[in-house]
Formats: sequence, structure tokens, C-alpha cells
Amino acid sequence: MMNFDTVIHSGTIATADWVCKGDIGIKDGKIVAISENIPGGERRIDAGGRLVMPGGIEAHAHIAQESSSGVMGADDYLSGSVSAAFGGNSSFIPFAAQHRGQSVDDVIATYDARAARSVLDYSYHLIISDPNEAVLHDQLPRAFGRGITSFKVFMTYDMMNLGDGGMLDILSVARAHGAITMVHAENNDMVKWMNRRLAEKGLTAPKYHAISRPELAEEEAINRAIQLAKLVDAPLFIVHVSTAGGAEIVRREKFNGTKLFAETCASYLALTRADLDRPGMEGAKYICSPPLRDAAAQAALWHHVQMGTFESVSSDHAPYRYDETGKFLNGTEVAYPKIANGMPGIAARLPYLFSEGVVKGRITLEQFVALGSTNAAKTFGCASKGRIAPGMDADIAIWNPEVRRSVTLAQQHDNMDYTPYEGMELTGVPEIVMTRGAVIVENGELKAREGQGRFFARQPADLRARPGFTAPEFDPAQNFGAVLR
Amino acid sequence: MMNFDTVIHSGTIATADWVCKGDIGIKDGKIVAISENIPGGERRIDAGGRLVMPGGIEAHAHIAQESSSGVMGADDYLSGSVSAAFGGNSSFIPFAAQHRGQSVDDVIATYDARAARSVLDYSYHLIISDPNEAVLHDQLPRAFGRGITSFKVFMTYDMMNLGDGGMLDILSVARAHGAITMVHAENNDMVKWMNRRLAEKGLTAPKYHAISRPELAEEEAINRAIQLAKLVDAPLFIVHVSTAGGAEIVRREKFNGTKLFAETCASYLALTRADLDRPGMEGAKYICSPPLRDAAAQAALWHHVQMGTFESVSSDHAPYRYDETGKFLNGTEVAYPKIANGMPGIAARLPYLFSEGVVKGRITLEQFVALGSTNAAKTFGCASKGRIAPGMDADIAIWNPEVRRSVTLAQQHDNMDYTPYEGMELTGVPEIVMTRGAVIVENGELKAREGQGRFFARQPADLRARPGFTAPEFDPAQNFGAVLR
Amino acid sequence: MMNFDTVIHSGTIATADWVCKGDIGIKDGKIVAISENIPGGERRIDAGGRLVMPGGIEAHAHIAQESSSGVMGADDYLSGSVSAAFGGNSSFIPFAAQHRGQSVDDVIATYDARAARSVLDYSYHLIISDPNEAVLHDQLPRAFGRGITSFKVFMTYDMMNLGDGGMLDILSVARAHGAITMVHAENNDMVKWMNRRLAEKGLTAPKYHAISRPELAEEEAINRAIQLAKLVDAPLFIVHVSTAGGAEIVRREKFNGTKLFAETCASYLALTRADLDRPGMEGAKYICSPPLRDAAAQAALWHHVQMGTFESVSSDHAPYRYDETGKFLNGTEVAYPKIANGMPGIAARLPYLFSEGVVKGRITLEQFVALGSTNAAKTFGCASKGRIAPGMDADIAIWNPEVRRSVTLAQQHDNMDYTPYEGMELTGVPEIVMTRGAVIVENGELKAREGQGRFFARQPADLRARPGFTAPEFDPAQNFGAVLR
Amino acid sequence: MMNFDTVIHSGTIATADWVCKGDIGIKDGKIVAISENIPGGERRIDAGGRLVMPGGIEAHAHIAQESSSGVMGADDYLSGSVSAAFGGNSSFIPFAAQHRGQSVDDVIATYDARAARSVLDYSYHLIISDPNEAVLHDQLPRAFGRGITSFKVFMTYDMMNLGDGGMLDILSVARAHGAITMVHAENNDMVKWMNRRLAEKGLTAPKYHAISRPELAEEEAINRAIQLAKLVDAPLFIVHVSTAGGAEIVRREKFNGTKLFAETCASYLALTRADLDRPGMEGAKYICSPPLRDAAAQAALWHHVQMGTFESVSSDHAPYRYDETGKFLNGTEVAYPKIANGMPGIAARLPYLFSEGVVKGRITLEQFVALGSTNAAKTFGCASKGRIAPGMDADIAIWNPEVRRSVTLAQQHDNMDYTPYEGMELTGVPEIVMTRGAVIVENGELKAREGQGRFFARQPADLRARPGFTAPEFDPAQNFGAVLR
Repeated sequence: MMNFDTVIHSGTIATADWVCKGDIGIKDGKIVAISENIPGGERRIDAGGRLVMPGGIEAHAHIAQESSSGVMGADDYLSGSVSAAFGGNSSFIPFAAQHRGQSVDDVIATYDARAARSVLDYSYHLIISDPNEAVLHDQLPRAFGRGITSFKVFMTYDMMNLGDGGMLDILSVARAHGAITMVHAENNDMVKWMNRRLAEKGLTAPKYHAISRPELAEEEAINRAIQLAKLVDAPLFIVHVSTAGGAEIVRREKFNGTKLFAETCASYLALTRADLDRPGMEGAKYICSPPLRDAAAQAALWHHVQMGTFESVSSDHAPYRYDETGKFLNGTEVAYPKIANGMPGIAARLPYLFSEGVVKGRITLEQFVALGSTNAAKTFGCASKGRIAPGMDADIAIWNPEVRRSVTLAQQHDNMDYTPYEGMELTGVPEIVMTRGAVIVENGELKAREGQGRFFARQPADLRARPGFTAPEFDPAQNFGAVLR
Repeated sequence: MMNFDTVIHSGTIATADWVCKGDIGIKDGKIVAISENIPGGERRIDAGGRLVMPGGIEAHAHIAQESSSGVMGADDYLSGSVSAAFGGNSSFIPFAAQHRGQSVDDVIATYDARAARSVLDYSYHLIISDPNEAVLHDQLPRAFGRGITSFKVFMTYDMMNLGDGGMLDILSVARAHGAITMVHAENNDMVKWMNRRLAEKGLTAPKYHAISRPELAEEEAINRAIQLAKLVDAPLFIVHVSTAGGAEIVRREKFNGTKLFAETCASYLALTRADLDRPGMEGAKYICSPPLRDAAAQAALWHHVQMGTFESVSSDHAPYRYDETGKFLNGTEVAYPKIANGMPGIAARLPYLFSEGVVKGRITLEQFVALGSTNAAKTFGCASKGRIAPGMDADIAIWNPEVRRSVTLAQQHDNMDYTPYEGMELTGVPEIVMTRGAVIVENGELKAREGQGRFFARQPADLRARPGFTAPEFDPAQNFGAVLR
Repeated sequence: MMNFDTVIHSGTIATADWVCKGDIGIKDGKIVAISENIPGGERRIDAGGRLVMPGGIEAHAHIAQESSSGVMGADDYLSGSVSAAFGGNSSFIPFAAQHRGQSVDDVIATYDARAARSVLDYSYHLIISDPNEAVLHDQLPRAFGRGITSFKVFMTYDMMNLGDGGMLDILSVARAHGAITMVHAENNDMVKWMNRRLAEKGLTAPKYHAISRPELAEEEAINRAIQLAKLVDAPLFIVHVSTAGGAEIVRREKFNGTKLFAETCASYLALTRADLDRPGMEGAKYICSPPLRDAAAQAALWHHVQMGTFESVSSDHAPYRYDETGKFLNGTEVAYPKIANGMPGIAARLPYLFSEGVVKGRITLEQFVALGSTNAAKTFGCASKGRIAPGMDADIAIWNPEVRRSVTLAQQHDNMDYTPYEGMELTGVPEIVMTRGAVIVENGELKAREGQGRFFARQPADLRARPGFTAPEFDPAQNFGAVLR
Repeated sequence: MMNFDTVIHSGTIATADWVCKGDIGIKDGKIVAISENIPGGERRIDAGGRLVMPGGIEAHAHIAQESSSGVMGADDYLSGSVSAAFGGNSSFIPFAAQHRGQSVDDVIATYDARAARSVLDYSYHLIISDPNEAVLHDQLPRAFGRGITSFKVFMTYDMMNLGDGGMLDILSVARAHGAITMVHAENNDMVKWMNRRLAEKGLTAPKYHAISRPELAEEEAINRAIQLAKLVDAPLFIVHVSTAGGAEIVRREKFNGTKLFAETCASYLALTRADLDRPGMEGAKYICSPPLRDAAAQAALWHHVQMGTFESVSSDHAPYRYDETGKFLNGTEVAYPKIANGMPGIAARLPYLFSEGVVKGRITLEQFVALGSTNAAKTFGCASKGRIAPGMDADIAIWNPEVRRSVTLAQQHDNMDYTPYEGMELTGVPEIVMTRGAVIVENGELKAREGQGRFFARQPADLRARPGFTAPEFDPAQNFGAVLR
């Protein structure tokens, strides 16, 4: 008889597929058994009245990363991972960003050093800003070989924007190796043109940020990115879709057989551009790109979340402090183009989605698990995460679904001096969070030690079962995966 | 330590969510454990190199049922359930059909007697042809109370067609009780008009059957059924969608928030109207309604299967023998309107979907499980079936994914004298099938005893997480189901 | 040199194609010259500062016709045609309605007698309620031979509704002869079901009329009518489209090559269902079928008018008096199902469309001419009307585009005791209206004598230039019409 | 009584609105009368059995213009205008192209000198390749003031491509002045990326030209151009749409209220990419940009022509000789990127559209007039051209609709050494063509003297009657145009 390290007893286990009462037995960091009434366990956790779910996978977060204008975000891998853990996440995939002129190997080495403090398991999405020949044909394939199977590019920001030609180069390399290309889609020239017009008129308050980055800029760029990907038949992932028009393009193109994936972010579901018009410089706290939109866009995004347009709901955690990084310098007004773009939210993502999604009946519990964890694992090739099944990493979050509380800054564990979710009443809280069987958060206390997270290699994008795809011939290994034998 | 009745050892377990290696422990007909290396078991099944999946749920089959023209189908609940079991199914939901003038209570009693021979667990979809006041307000609610939570109506066949008013009555009652209304959608007048024209021209060969029931007839009726359901805000399930146009309507309306569900059938994916033009009366074997369509429609249906337009792929098993029931009477030519509408296929559905879907890479293994079993359980309220999880019925099919064989009539276990899948080369076969833990089929042999299947009560349609739906207030029981406490 | 009977001098001539200054010379009832500075003319009309346009063709009016419930409308062919003339019309095509059991020949004879009083030229659309064999194969072809080339059918009202089979019969006959089938598209069973529910709850005020005939009922029926027409490949004209959904279906199907035509009515552009909720029984004045819709539908209809979804904007003049015909009987409240369906509007159609369309910049003057006159001529085969060109009937309206006035009942010339346009401020008035060169209205006075209008035979529907249509071979007569030689 | 310079007697006059028999009286270059039986006339043309239509307006032609790679086209304003005249055109609007660094004033002066040889009336579309401040804010407004009210930009070709920012600048200036911006929409980076790939593989035969400029490149750029125009709310004209996808975007956006106009070209209706694969270097004759597409695209374009997606069908006459300008240099093979892009077609456009459109029943004669002449006049503000109405320029083409002939190079009047229409059998020929009342072509002979054409100033784009447009207040001059008083 097996002696489990941990047994989670009597919980309501919720997966992307089903919700059932049962116990989970954990050994050596793995889920070993899902069963009725497992006896024993070195540690025995009573999960009666609780939901036992795969720990969240945060697939969009900026940790220990410089902004496009060179400002270092407030969270390093310690504070970032701790905050994520308190928000119900067991792992995350922040970005490792290349500066122009920097080699990818150097980028990875830099982030490996930074990530050594993480309490969560982690991988990276590479951000490529300089796709020269060495990057394309030597360094990216090597990164891919290390299990870094997603490359992100920007269509906006002068320092990051690759142009359509650079995107085709990246997409082409990604396709050759099975990587997925992620894209921040906003038309750079539209934004610059708007900035110039607003500057001419002296309109620089935070609310003009939303006007400077119009919905058209995102919709145009989403469409363009998709057409570029179609040209080279490469898979594409649209990050932080914020517009109804953009979501509709994604939906239409997916149906038509494009190898397309997409996310929206909790911030677009929770906040609107009206928040940018708060008194004084308060609006600066809500500056992010793409910007918050209006209530109609928000309703449409919820609709798309319900109908499966998006694989995931992410946080786009981009922690720029209000007091230090340009958002509100020493009490002075700052023109919106000088304010760092980004908001914190890594801890709020899952509680918000649970409370407004599951509790309010917009999505099922199964959808919540899929949107917060399982789909990210599938999309980004995290083979041993995001699912409750024998052999999977014991990345588990145990939620109390009935606790109701108001969000405050004091509850937060990141390095920020504000939270955009301040004052929201949310129902449901992750009480215990585990990564590979180790409890890292328990009843509001951190149980992890710095650096206990590990890098995990990822698999290629899974493009089976996309319209138009047909396996060339029958190969059980290809069709059922390595698990079969 | 638990002593399991059965342990399925070392298989590759595949669910709608994940594919992992592991063991399954079964006790008292229930799945009790999903685990690595479960020791013991009174019976121990070695599933090495095999796929272990939820047994199929056949949600569309005509068993021991008279056709609309009064011909009794060839399969009773014994032969029908045995054939289904050999095709990888652990349960099914045939129809219990009301004749005009008959009470629903009488219908149920009649089918309870017929179903007593089943080797599979079963429930019924009620077919209503006579929605009088007693039926609507007394008998249907009583049937619903017994766990018969789906009512089917016809928009075609003079003897069955309710008219739009009758449909509104049924939909309205279904909505009041939480039942789902299923509909055979073909415009009756279009078909009759075509029949008359074809008769005038003396065109009666089997191939004219397809011409007599044009794609427009289905597309129009699907649209109409949906608008009727929208008028009373009732959930609707479109059965056997056979056209690209019909599927597109379903897709569009689902997105727009209609409480809509749909299936297509394996026959529409496997066969085309060209089969109706086989020599002599061979074409009669391929007569069903709606009829087989052309290759373009078939390609479109596969596309919709891939993209999630359909909850399920069913069989619409409707076993009318070639030699007896009008298909080919004593060697005589029979005009198509006199040929019974329907084909067998309950045994071929899952092997065909596995071979052409999973093996050929059109769908993932997870999608196969969802389309063949899990989604039917969710749609039709089969709370303890269709999923591999603790506490679920041990309805399990163990497949050999590599065996390749040619379909022959000799392999079949139904009472038919032909199979429309004759000669097709399929890869993958269900070797062991269990219902509530009892092996009923093993390596080509029947292990069940007549009548060991049981009726199961079903729950109401689950309409959470549909666009526009918002729970009125937070109620854990409503939002997470009865399992939470 | 030609001696003209009438010369219209120095006006701004507006056609569906162009707007130019010029004179028009008329002889023997025909337009003979469009020219600069035509001298002479027995009568010489100074049109300086005026718009000279084709007289309107009212293609949807109920004149001297019994309602579906048997109430005779208030306007006979004298009052109806006079009112139309004051509204800028030179001709009209009212309905000639068959009662069940009545022969088409008898219908025509009846209406010929009634129409003998008309001051406008006229033709009829036949309404068919009883498509028996004699009607279909003997009487309709004979009517077609007389130049009555449009047949109307109803999908609603128990006394009129043909059922889908009857519609297919009519469409099939219409196709064989080149006639166009018009359809009042509302789902009869939906309306009856709503009526029953409203009656059960005692909801009978006028505003419930709009609820009893939901937008879904029109949208469903429009779609069904189109599919029926497609089955037999017959041209179809959807009358009085009142919903955004219906208009969208029309637009989509036209694009996809369906031989489809459609109109909306001025009433749907001018009024909303809010008018049905006026105090007391005032709402009864606004009861028509399909009912008035909300402001969003109205905005969508304007959009479709602008974009060419509709050939025409008609009036659906259906004059049931407030004091006599059930709308408001002797001061008593009347339940909405007993109130005659219909409003007057034959005089308001063009002034409203001019004022709200042209003056407000929603449509061009050329579109106004097309929507009010030219397109109706083309759609319904009025070969010599609706255009300003040599040889055309001198059916001309001369408008003062700047006069602004408020609509009052006192201005009206119909037999009604109210106008739903009461109090609206409209800009633009037809000052002179001619039919075949004879002035029938001039500066607010009637100049016509009773019965001076004549029946005009019409040509078949013109289906050239529809997507998918290709002439079988080159035949100048077919391709350019009889005018070529 | 008026003494006409010319009377066109007894023809079948065809306008965008109607087809009628009649005479046309011309005086001082203007149409003065459209009438039955006009007596006299200094010159009297018998048009019995002939079609009398507005002379064509060719709105897309490259005359005396250097290609993007600096090659001067073969036709100057004499040969170009003569060829156009033989093809049924009475006026044209070639491009006046700015070189980078050149002032717009200089561009106009240059083209004024070149155009002095024209036998047709002419205006210019300005091509802007260098939108510096002086161009934007000084020179373009001055050009607009001269009646040059359309500015063209390129999204492809390194020497021409403005980038999205430059386009926004032009669109913004155009909007301020009421000009319309025309755009050649192909994604430059996609094309360059394809060129590089093809070069790497050594694929340089003419047929690879079509591969190097994929349909996606056009579809993407059309969408982007529209979004850019929407950002600044400026009218946009998409030139030479060659793809089904592009046409569909145009159709959708027009419906949604975008101030959008578009054309396709006769070449895309007449030829396919299969022509690029003719033996030897013959394929070089069919190189143009965007390239010829496949038969499916061609069918879709016809469909859109029929349904009104396009205002016009143009020629995109771009005459690069086969023997001299890179297409086939001295018998040597030339790689496709070095071959000048463009084909002749100014003489074939209308005969092709008449023969394949009108004669084959795809479009009506009225549509032919609109697509070949009237709509161009309306779109580009040619106030006195393109219509047969009093006061209009007597720009008239008299066609024999029954003559059938085979296209040969020998018939051509341009300076080319091939015609891509060689050998096509066309029905219908323009026998007499007039510009401002002067016969310039008659029965195959040129009657014009060099330089008799005149520049004509154009009006702003007419944006009335677009969805969403509402006139701010009633102003007869604005709403009915200058003609009213």
C-alpha cells in the first residue's frame, strides 16, 4: 500500500472536465491518485466544503522586466511569484525580453539569474525585438531546444516594433520548429499619429491615453498579424485582446481554420476606460496598453469568454508603481505618454474570474479551470501541469468558494503601492496553493522558501485537430502522444 | 486498504480533459480510484498499450420502435444494446415514441417492458406526436419527474409533425420544467411538394430520396425551430444536422446566445448521397432522413465537428432490414417513398469516429471522448456517466488503438442483414466494455446477461454559462452542483 | 416644330440618375422632350425653384378592399387615388384580393368595377388565398396574360395563410409565367400562440398588439419564404419589412444570388411602438401588421434604405377609421385582437421620405426618386412609368422643396378620421402632380375628374443581372428589351 | 426653334436609369435636348438599331507616366487618348505622379504639358509619394483648388509606399478639403518577403509574379487602408480590387457605414493567373499588380460587379511594351521582378464589359452605363460628364450592339506591341464617339485633331447618403446641389 506524502481529503475536485467529490494522493511532487477516501498521508489536508482545482498558470506577466521605455517593473521573481501564489497560481510563464543588440542566449541567462528567486515553477516566453540572422537561425532554435517554445513580438512601440517583415521572419522560424508566436497587436503609426494630434492640442491627462490607442489600432493589427501568420502557415497567439472587433476577428479566423489562439485579460473584464478619468492623477493607475475600453466592449469580451473565443484569461501583470515610475512623480502631473504602461493584477486574476464568472453564473466551474489553468498548459506545451490526473505535477489550489471579502492594498503581496481592484467585493479565495506537492501558501501565510520554483521545459504547440489538419499517416505516438507506450 | 472489485492496470487513460498513464480501481460498480499502480483487484485487467476511456453514450438510436410509417425496427433492446456494446458504448438513450392518442404514461410503460432486455444502462428521450392538454400539463411533468428530461418533436412526416403551434406548446412546457426539446428539422411541405413532383415524373429510384428532401428543407426547419425556441426562451437540441447551411445556423445562433445544442451523425461523415445511386436496389440501404448529402457538405460537417459546433456525433441507428421492411421486398423494386427511412450504425459510430477522426488527426483523443460520451452526459443530464472520476459509474471502454480491420456484416451483432459501413478499413477497436463495473464485452465475446442494464434518471438541461445567463444571486448549490456538500 | 400640349419650364429635373436644370415637353400624355428652353406649350408651367420628378408609384396600398377580418377599408378608388395624388403619386398598384372560393376572374372583375373611379392610373397585385387547381393552372395564367404580373400571399391570418405547400404552388406557377410573388411574412402560429398567452393574462390594450407579433415572427417567416422561393427558383418580393433581422436576411440572401426584392414602409421609418402606448385608445390608431418596432429597428431600417437593401419605401395604406371599424367603437375600449390592422399613409409616404431622407441628408435626391417611383416601375414591370425619358408616360410631380408645414388631418383627402403623422413638421410639398400629362393636383386643389385613371398592363419581373444569371445565348431583344428595334 | 449642331436620331438611348428610343440634340458641345423626333441638325446621325450612351469615363489609366521603377509607359496623351476613344471613352482621368522631392505644382505643370496632346477631355488623380509639410499643407490644397480632387497613395513598392503614418497624413488633408484618397493596397513587406524566398529558390519565371503577390497581401492591405481611413473619417477609394476577400471586406465595410468606394478592372474579369504560365516569356505580357488571380476569384468579382460592391470597372491601362521595357528584352529571359508591371487595356475595357456583361446577361445595360461612365462621374466629381441630360457635356458613344469580332493587335491604336485580349470574341462595338459634341471616332476612323481635349476641374467627393451621415441643417444648395437655382 502506498504511503502518500500528502492526501487532500474530502474536497470537491474540479477539473476542466468534471466536478466530483474525492481525495487526491500526492507522492514525490506528483499527483498519484484521485480516489474516494484515501487513508493516511504524511500530511492530511481536510478539504471538506472546499474546491480542489489545478493551480492557476499565469501565462502573461512581466516580472523583473524592463518596460519598453526602460523602467524596471516593481516585482522581481520573488515578489511576483509570491503574489501569483496568493492569487491561486502554481506556476507562471513571464517574459524574457531581448534588448536590441542582445543575444537570446544572454537574455535567457539574464532571466535565469532573475528567476532563481521564484517560489513558483516557471518558464519564459521570449520577447524578440531584434530578429537578426544569428537570432533567427541559431539562437532561437537553441532556445526552442531548451523548451522555450513561444516567441513574442510587438507591432507597437518604436523600440520593439518589428515591422511586418520582421514578423514574417519570426513566424517562419517559429513554424519550422513548432513554436508559437505571440503578438501584441496595435498599429504603431495610428498610435503615434494620435499622440501627435493630442500633443498639438495639449491633451495629456491620463484619460487621453485611451484615446491615443483607439480600438481601430488593435483591430487593424490583430487582422494584420493573422494574415501574416497565414502567409507562412504559422500558429499565432493574440495576447490581451481588448476589443469586440478584435475578438470577432479571432472567432471568425479560428472557425476558418487559422491556427489561432487568443487571450483576454481580467483587467478588461473588470475595469473600463471610465477609470482613466478618475480625479487628479488617479487615472494614471489604470494606464495599460491596449487601454481599457468601454462597457460595451467589456460585455462583448465576457460573451467571447463564455463562447470559447479565448483560450485563457490572463493578468498582464505589469507592475509600475504609482509613486516612482512615472505614474505620479512627487505629486506632479505627468503627461500620459510619459506614464509607464501597465497595471498589477497577478493576484486578482483568478479571484476576479471566479467571483464574476463562476459565482455569477457566467461560466461553469469547468470553464474556470480551463480558462485559468488547463488551456494555458495545452496551448503552451506544459505537459505536466494544469490537470488533475495521475502523473501530473501536484500543482493544486484549494479554494473556499464562499468567503466574501473586499480587495485592499494591504492584502497584496507584490511590491506595488496600489491595486486597480481596490474595493471590489469578491467571493471565493484560494486558501491553500501547492507547487509540485509543496504547500506554498496556506490560509494567508507564505509557506514557500525563496527559490524553490524550478524552470520547466515546454513542448511544441499542439496543432492537431485544427480545421484542415490531417495527419499524414497513422503514427500512434504522434496522434496520442508520448504517454501511450 | 481498499479491496477493489476490478483494477484496470497500466492503461493510457483518456478523458475529455487529459490523456495520462494510470490505473483505475472499481468497487461496487463505481470508479473509486484513478491512480498510479493500484495493486490487487479481484479482477485485474492489463491495459498496457490500450486506451481506457469513458464508455460511449449513444444518444440517438431507435430501438424496439415503430417507424413513422409503423414498421417495427429490427433491433429490440437486447440486440440493440448488444450491438451498441460491441461498438464501445456503455449506455444509451433510445426514443420512447408516443402514438397519437396514447398517453405518455402508457408510452413509458410500453418501453419499460421493451427495455427490460437491455444489457446497457438506458434512459429515454420521449417522442411527442400528440401534445394535448393532458400530455402537456399532466403527463410530461410526471415523466420529467421520473428523470426523463428530454422531449423530441418532428417537423416532418404527416403522422408526427406537430406544426409550429404544437412545438411552441412543447417548448413552453419543457422550459417550465427544465427539459430540453430535441427536434427533427425538415420542412414537411417542401418534402411533400418534392415527392409529388418526383411522383409525377415517375422518378422513384432510391437516389431520388435525396432529391426529395433537399438541403433547403433542413436549413429552413433548423432556422424555424431555433426561432420558435427563442420565442419561449427554451433550450433546443437539433438532431442529425446533415447540411453545411444548418451547421452554420447552429454556430451563429449559439454564438448569439441561443440555448442551443446540436449533433451530427457518423453516417453523414462517412457516406454521401452517391451511395444512394448504387446499382439495383443497393441504394435503398442508404436511405435515411435527412438524407446523405454530397462531399462538400461532408467536409463542412467535419469542419464543424472540429470547431465545436456539435456537442456530439451520434449514430441515429434506425435498423430497417433490407429484405423485410420495404427496402428490397422479395427482389422487387420499391419506390423510394415506400422504403423505410433509416440505417443501422450503433456499432460503427465510435470506431468510425476514432479511425477517421483521431487516427487521421482531425480531432484529438480528448475531443473523441467528449463527442462520443462526455458531452452527451452533460447535455442530457446523465450525472454519473461519461466521465472518469471518483464516484462515477464504472462505464468504461478499453480500446486497442492500432488494430486495423475491415468492416463486415459477419462482425455485427444487430439483427440487420447489411451494414452501410461494409468494407471500410478502420483502425482501433473497443476490446473491453463495462457498464457499472461489469464487463459486458471482451475481445469479441458478449459477457453480459440479458436485462442487466438499468434505467437511469436524468437531470435537467444545464444552461449555466450560456451567453446572457447570469445567476440571480450566489447559491453554491446552484453554481457548483449538488456535489459541493 | 413640335407643338407641345404642356411644357414644364425651368425646373430642376431629378431622376434616379441625375439632377439637372431643364424643360420637359409633353404631348398626348407622353414625355416627348427633355431639353433646355423649350418654347411654347399649350400650357406652360413655370417650375423655377421647383424639383420636377417622376410621379410616385405607390406599390403597396389597400383600396376598396376588405380586411382579413372582412372590414371594408374607408377609402374607395376615388378617395384613395385622390389622397395618393396629393401625396405626389401619379399611379398606384393596390391589391385585388381573392376570397376563398372566389375565382380570380371574378376578383378582377370586382376590382375593375371598383377601380373605375380612380383618378390615378392603376394596376393590381392579386392576393391569392385559395390556390386550387383552377386558380393555379387556369385563372392565374389568364390574369398574367392581362398584365397582372404579381401575386401576393400571406403567411399569417388564418383566413389568408396558405401554408408552405400553398406557397410553393403559387411560387411555382409564378415562376412558370414570369410573375413575381409578394409575401406578407409573419409566422402565424407564433402570433396565435402569443395572442393566447396575452388573452389568458387579460392583456388587451393596444400596446400588446406589438408584443403579440414579435420581431422573431417576421424574421422567421422572411427566412422561410426565401427558402421556399429558392426551392423553386422563383422571384420573391418581401413586403413591409419592419425588423433589422429581416432586413439583414434580405441583404444576405440578395448578395448570395437569390432573386429577391423587398420594401419597407414609411410608417416604420416615422413611428415606433411607443406610439402604441399613447393614452386611452389613441394607441389603436397605430395598429398595423407587422407592428411598429422600437427605435433601434427604425435606425437599422434607415441604414438599409441608404444601402440599397430595399427597392422601395411604400405606404401600406390600410385605412380603417378610428370611429367606425373597431379601432375605437363609440368610446368603448376594444381589445387589440378586434382592432382592424392598418393605418392610412398614402399621402404622407413621399413627403415624409423627402423631408427626413433628402432634406436631412440621409439619402440623395436620386435615391428618393428611385425609392419612391423608379424602382417600383422596374420591379413590377411598369414599362412606361417611373422615369423621365422620351416616350414615357408624363407621370410627373413638381415639388416645392422648401415649404415647411405641419401635418394635420384637415389637409388630408382620404376618408379617414385621423392621420398617424399628425403634427409632424415636414419640408417639401408636391405642388403639381400629373398623370399621363393631365394635371390632377395643383397647389392644393384637385383638378382631376373621377375615373380618369386607366388600368395599365405590366411586364414580367426582370431577373437579368442577378448573380448567377447568364443569358443562354445572345438575343438583343431579350438583353436590351423591346425598345431596341 | 432651336438649330442643333448635331442630332442623333432614332437611337436606343441607354442611361444608368432607363433605356428608351429617342433623339438627342446637341448645341455648343452640350446635350440640349433628349426628345422624340428632333428635326434638323447641322449634322444628323442616324442611330437606328444602335445604342446611344454616355461616353465612357476611364478613371484608372497610366498615360505618359513613369512606372514605379522609372520606365516611361509606351502611351503618351495622344496615343493613350486615341486608344481610349476607340474603346468608347469620351474622357479620362490618368494619374499625375509625384517623384520624391518634387513639388505638386511641378507635377501638375509637367502633366499639363504632356496632356496638351489629348483628344479626350481629361483630369488627373495626383499620386503622392512624398507627403512632406509643404505638400500636405500648401501644395495639395492648391491642387484641390484647381479641381484636382483625388489623391492616390501606394501601400507597396519601396519607392512609393508611404507607410501607415504617411497615409494618415494624406487622408487627413484629403478629408479637410473634401478630396477622396485612392489607394493601391498590397502589403509591401509580404511581397518583399515572398520575393526573397522565390529568389532564394531561383524561381523567376513570369508565373511566380502571381505567387510573389499573394491574395493575402491585397486583403490585408485593403483592410488596413480602410481602418486608417476610418480613424480620420476620410473617404477612401480602393483601386483595382482583384480578390474575393478584398471585395468582401469592401462590401462589409460599405454596409457598416464607411465612406468607401471601390473598383475592379476588366483584366481581372477577363484573364486569370493561368495566363502567366503561357509558354516561353509570353506570360510576361500578363504581369500586373495586383496580379491576375484564379477562376474562383474571377467568378467572385463578377458576383460583386453584379451586386454593386464596385462603383466602376476600370482598365488600369499601364502600357509597357513587350519588346522594350523589360518584358522580353532581345529574346532573353527576364526574371519577373525586373519586368514592368502593367498591361494595356484602355480600348478593351468597355467592349469586354459590354460583351461579357450585357450580352451574356450578367449585368443590365443600365448597369453597364453606370459601371463604365456614370458612377465614375459621381464618385470623382465630374459634374458635367457621364450622364445624358440637358446641360451635360455631349460626351456620347454610339454602339452597334450586334457586331461580333475577334480582338487583334492590328485593331489597336495604342503604342503597344501586344494586347492581352488577343483573340477574344466580343460582341458590340462603339461606332461613333463624341467629346463635347465633336465626333472623335467614327466607324473605325479617328476624326479628332491632336490636343482638342481639355482639362476639366472636378468637385469634391459626394458623401451624402452614406449611412450615418445626416445633414446638420437644411440647406437646399447643399442637399440638391448647385443646379437648384
